[in-house]
Amino acid sequence: MSGNSIGQNLILTTYGESHGAAIGGVLDGAPAGIPLDEAAIQAELDRRKPGTSRHVTPRQEDDRLRLLSGIFAGKTTGTPIGLLIHNEDQRSRDYGAIKDQYRPGHADYTYHAKYGIRDYRGGGRASARETAIRVAGGAIAKQILAHLASTRIRSYVSQIGEHRLDFADWKHVSENPFNCPNDHQTALLDRYLADIRRDGDSIGAEITVIAENVPAGLGEPVFDRLDADIAKALMSINAVKGVEIGDGFAVIQKRGSENRDERRAASGFASNHAGGILGGISSGQTILARAAFKPTSSILIPGHSTDVHGADVEVVTKGRHDPCVALRACPIVEAMLALTLADHYLRQRGQNGR
Amino acid sequence: MSGNSIGQNLILTTYGESHGAAIGGVLDGAPAGIPLDEAAIQAELDRRKPGTSRHVTPRQEDDRLRLLSGIFAGKTTGTPIGLLIHNEDQRSRDYGAIKDQYRPGHADYTYHAKYGIRDYRGGGRASARETAIRVAGGAIAKQILAHLASTRIRSYVSQIGEHRLDFADWKHVSENPFNCPNDHQTALLDRYLADIRRDGDSIGAEITVIAENVPAGLGEPVFDRLDADIAKALMSINAVKGVEIGDGFAVIQKRGSENRDERRAASGFASNHAGGILGGISSGQTILARAAFKPTSSILIPGHSTDVHGADVEVVTKGRHDPCVALRACPIVEAMLALTLADHYLRQRGQNGR
Amino acid sequence: MSGNSIGQNLILTTYGESHGAAIGGVLDGAPAGIPLDEAAIQAELDRRKPGTSRHVTPRQEDDRLRLLSGIFAGKTTGTPIGLLIHNEDQRSRDYGAIKDQYRPGHADYTYHAKYGIRDYRGGGRASARETAIRVAGGAIAKQILAHLASTRIRSYVSQIGEHRLDFADWKHVSENPFNCPNDHQTALLDRYLADIRRDGDSIGAEITVIAENVPAGLGEPVFDRLDADIAKALMSINAVKGVEIGDGFAVIQKRGSENRDERRAASGFASNHAGGILGGISSGQTILARAAFKPTSSILIPGHSTDVHGADVEVVTKGRHDPCVALRACPIVEAMLALTLADHYLRQRGQNGR
Amino acid sequence: MSGNSIGQNLILTTYGESHGAAIGGVLDGAPAGIPLDEAAIQAELDRRKPGTSRHVTPRQEDDRLRLLSGIFAGKTTGTPIGLLIHNEDQRSRDYGAIKDQYRPGHADYTYHAKYGIRDYRGGGRASARETAIRVAGGAIAKQILAHLASTRIRSYVSQIGEHRLDFADWKHVSENPFNCPNDHQTALLDRYLADIRRDGDSIGAEITVIAENVPAGLGEPVFDRLDADIAKALMSINAVKGVEIGDGFAVIQKRGSENRDERRAASGFASNHAGGILGGISSGQTILARAAFKPTSSILIPGHSTDVHGADVEVVTKGRHDPCVALRACPIVEAMLALTLADHYLRQRGQNGR
Repeated sequence: MSGNSIGQNLILTTYGESHGAAIGGVLDGAPAGIPLDEAAIQAELDRRKPGTSRHVTPRQEDDRLRLLSGIFAGKTTGTPIGLLIHNEDQRSRDYGAIKDQYRPGHADYTYHAKYGIRDYRGGGRASARETAIRVAGGAIAKQILAHLASTRIRSYVSQIGEHRLDFADWKHVSENPFNCPNDHQTALLDRYLADIRRDGDSIGAEITVIAENVPAGLGEPVFDRLDADIAKALMSINAVKGVEIGDGFAVIQKRGSENRDERRAASGFASNHAGGILGGISSGQTILARAAFKPTSSILIPGHSTDVHGADVEVVTKGRHDPCVALRACPIVEAMLALTLADHYLRQRGQNGR
Repeated sequence: MSGNSIGQNLILTTYGESHGAAIGGVLDGAPAGIPLDEAAIQAELDRRKPGTSRHVTPRQEDDRLRLLSGIFAGKTTGTPIGLLIHNEDQRSRDYGAIKDQYRPGHADYTYHAKYGIRDYRGGGRASARETAIRVAGGAIAKQILAHLASTRIRSYVSQIGEHRLDFADWKHVSENPFNCPNDHQTALLDRYLADIRRDGDSIGAEITVIAENVPAGLGEPVFDRLDADIAKALMSINAVKGVEIGDGFAVIQKRGSENRDERRAASGFASNHAGGILGGISSGQTILARAAFKPTSSILIPGHSTDVHGADVEVVTKGRHDPCVALRACPIVEAMLALTLADHYLRQRGQNGR
Repeated sequence: MSGNSIGQNLILTTYGESHGAAIGGVLDGAPAGIPLDEAAIQAELDRRKPGTSRHVTPRQEDDRLRLLSGIFAGKTTGTPIGLLIHNEDQRSRDYGAIKDQYRPGHADYTYHAKYGIRDYRGGGRASARETAIRVAGGAIAKQILAHLASTRIRSYVSQIGEHRLDFADWKHVSENPFNCPNDHQTALLDRYLADIRRDGDSIGAEITVIAENVPAGLGEPVFDRLDADIAKALMSINAVKGVEIGDGFAVIQKRGSENRDERRAASGFASNHAGGILGGISSGQTILARAAFKPTSSILIPGHSTDVHGADVEVVTKGRHDPCVALRACPIVEAMLALTLADHYLRQRGQNGR
Repeated sequence: MSGNSIGQNLILTTYGESHGAAIGGVLDGAPAGIPLDEAAIQAELDRRKPGTSRHVTPRQEDDRLRLLSGIFAGKTTGTPIGLLIHNEDQRSRDYGAIKDQYRPGHADYTYHAKYGIRDYRGGGRASARETAIRVAGGAIAKQILAHLASTRIRSYVSQIGEHRLDFADWKHVSENPFNCPNDHQTALLDRYLADIRRDGDSIGAEITVIAENVPAGLGEPVFDRLDADIAKALMSINAVKGVEIGDGFAVIQKRGSENRDERRAASGFASNHAGGILGGISSGQTILARAAFKPTSSILIPGHSTDVHGADVEVVTKGRHDPCVALRACPIVEAMLALTLADHYLRQRGQNGR
């Protein structure tokens, strides 16, 4: 496959550039007979929509999703689901200088190296706009998992810059523009991000995602381990530079006697250092993963780069940008985890010999 | 695919259990006409072989690789390469108690949940023994990359427990049993690991892997990004719980102005925070990744668990074990990176429109 | 993959039902920098459009294709090409009886057996309407092949019912509504098909497809042979029940001494019984394949069947139908061959070690 | 994938050349807990073994299959099954002239065009020897299908040269060296094939394969139709030039009113022109397919060809050859159908939403 599809039994394929006529995709492999709540799918898209607070880009996208096929009388039919979002905000502009420039920290340079041709009107396929279709596909995957296994997937922003965000209660996450899981650090974050935006700069962040009620037995040895596929799915999100499962990088400093999750008949697992995955297969415990988001390179501070002719240029990325792109990324992270779990759920059903 | 294959254009499939007759695999997609140095492939296998120091298990495996097909007169023929290693050390033993027990921190529980049947003679597919075939396939991938693109892949252990290991020179890595990249911390490590082994315990570690001379343009948008496929490949290694590219989790605390890699016509990229990958596509810079290895759960300290009948048991994992499994993992990490890069190299050749 | 995608390096995915909002697809893997003639793509679609003669259904579909992505300034960019055709003729009607009936000879029964749910408004995914997106994707594949290898793909109807159609000249094929390759049998066919339509019946046919200027070396041993992939591609077309390459079923009665294609240095191959493929790999000779189309079961003559409740019913398939569906199938057959050849062309480029 | 694997959920990968150390493969995706009868697998291999009558090559191959993994205590464990057959009859010989010659009608020319390098010691991957591993994998697929769905797959030779073989009773098929389904044409065939062998020539044939007790609902729209995947599987067998399902090419001359299979509540389907597949999905009726085998080009009659230097040569294929290769192909045809059906059976289990 040429890189625009993910999954084996439940496959999401996406297409579309940020400044083209539309973005879209196909979700293939959804079982027949699953009731779909279209409003809930749209609600997921609205969560990643820009313009919802002063900390995210004011670009006005309606992101109205159309489901073109695969659904009849409110249920999946087992045939592929066509997904389409028209690009409404294709403002015509003068691309002038940027047309030939490689923006520092962006994929302009590598896309040109790869293809020898580049759609300079925005980030093309490297634009975060593509992730809207992931969210749509992931929202359907969430409903498949909820219907078949009562699995629930949620996430929050667990760190922004040097600020570790304490988890207090899930209810807080949707009550603030930072997806912060408490209500005592939000004022601080508001000031912190305002400062960064005033500097024309950006900052990194971490998202923690959790899946509850995951059946034991999902994941394939030895390459398509559940953790390996989660790592790929999360690392495929724009700006992600690190992924960990359970205790993650902290295991480097752990002893085996403290890291292994013991188990008793009466109470089950006594701990969950493994993050719900042992030997690449789900244990039935809560799955926990984290993704590190780099600070976006789309900032107002000029940077040195080169252009397509090999000359030095100084680039300023004007336009509409987020000081912390991870703030809108929670539904994307959840979508990628949902797609991965639903794919493995369907794989396991096919392989179960009993 | 059912999880025992990795790659799209260069595909490694493996089979075999730790206590079966043999382990083996197939490497499909190697281009024709590549000269192969069989001794160099065996040398890679010897690097992960147990019994090379007092810090690794004394199990005597010869791990003699047989190449069964796909090679003629010292060169690849373009047809699949059959890989085979007979399991020589299948000592018959009394599996007694362990037969029905789920060892804490092991995949016994999840394999049973998945398959409802379990080969209790060792770890089955979850055993690190399977990785010998990855090393064999990866060694061929290394030679393909070296021949076609002069790419070179190396790794070292960058942390053991709380000890961060300074990089001094590549030459040191092969001179000590820890794959430590300096000669001033090896005495310390020797004592540190002796203590852990005396405790019957184990410790985690981190491996850093580097690929030089990687052509720009490798990696596919949007799901099969080079970093996403590297994350999957590394996370698929036994005991790995975290993967990062370039600055990795450190980007959380970075500002965009310091994290983006600027570039000048005369001197090229001024930094490499991105670890050689932008927008999922290689930039031509050195690729750098890190993997976190958990401490093995195969320790002599008894642990609580349950058995297949749901009863409480106390388990001691007797036998031959490594206090730090990562010490033998460098060739595995290099193999997985080599397979991923070679796969993308061949994919890019097919897609290049010019 | 769940069956709605074909190809490894050039992948067409389709979605959409005959009576839904739209049909569409994604063509992934087209190399960057290929000039695309959009009018020529639409012209291919117009060839399969109904309503072009009295022998095909008068349903008025405009089949106006929209290319949503992957093209910039008239050339492919290497990113996936989104394909969309709105369903304009979704006339609302009373599905009444047919809602619960399995039309004899149709896929109604098997789709219900598979999915337990069925979109009764037309054939759903089993409708020939889905093939419009194949034609669109195939038209792009044709242009890729023409640009990179000067390959040319054409087809004609070589038999209708008992009438074997003599090949005279390619120019005739587009001059009559039967895709008949001569001008002396067209009057006969006109009467023949008028009789069948008057009977409310239908008739089978055969299409012969030819690819010229196919590079030698395309096709993979041992399962993804070029002929195996052509067989799958053609058999996947609605109503096709048989596929043959070169002399096909006639080889049963041939001796080895007459069937092998001899070869001389001065004049090349002396014959082409093999149809351009030896050992599953293209020889550089013209590729020739044939597909047998069954007579459509959508006829006016009542037939016995059962309904979803297991009761006997007599079904008449009213509405708009073709007496010989193969008459519109030439562009579909060409599209499937073009997709298969372009896919293997790109695979071979990636694997070529030299 | 690079062509040496087939299947999506049950995947067979093969490797090995006719004159190498061994041939082998991996069957991945077999569900856990299926009892395997190893003797029955070996018996399938023995059916295709040379040397069983004067009409097949006397080459002495023992074809002793070793199952290296994936089986424990007589049952599948869900992990991949390693398959290995050592090549025992690698008689050293002088390849002399043939080393540089392209045998007419063989894949020598196309393999050289593809790879630029060729293992001239026999047919390499194009050798029918590779099919031994298909038979091994198919034998396991047969047992999976029998265990899970009571499906039974059988075949017979339905035509040799101009002799159409009447079907009398399955019992006859194994009673004669021709897999002929009656006992009144065997004397004729014995004389017929003796004549051809005396001429140093070969003859084509047709095999008919039948699967009974196939569950309804197998097959995916729109590309991975069951008939499309059967077509690919059968066409991938050496020497096959045509494949048909049900009435096959005869449908060209049929009317819709006679070709559609009517159905009544009391008695089910009244006919089976469709060969058990409607809209690409199994109907629960018996699946019937036919494959046309060309006469082998390995004959004693000299033929014109060229060599690697472009010079004219006259080639005689000495050595051990069958006058009618299809006589040994019944287990291969059955294996490919079994692999295809088992693959789709497991896919359908994963997708069933209920």
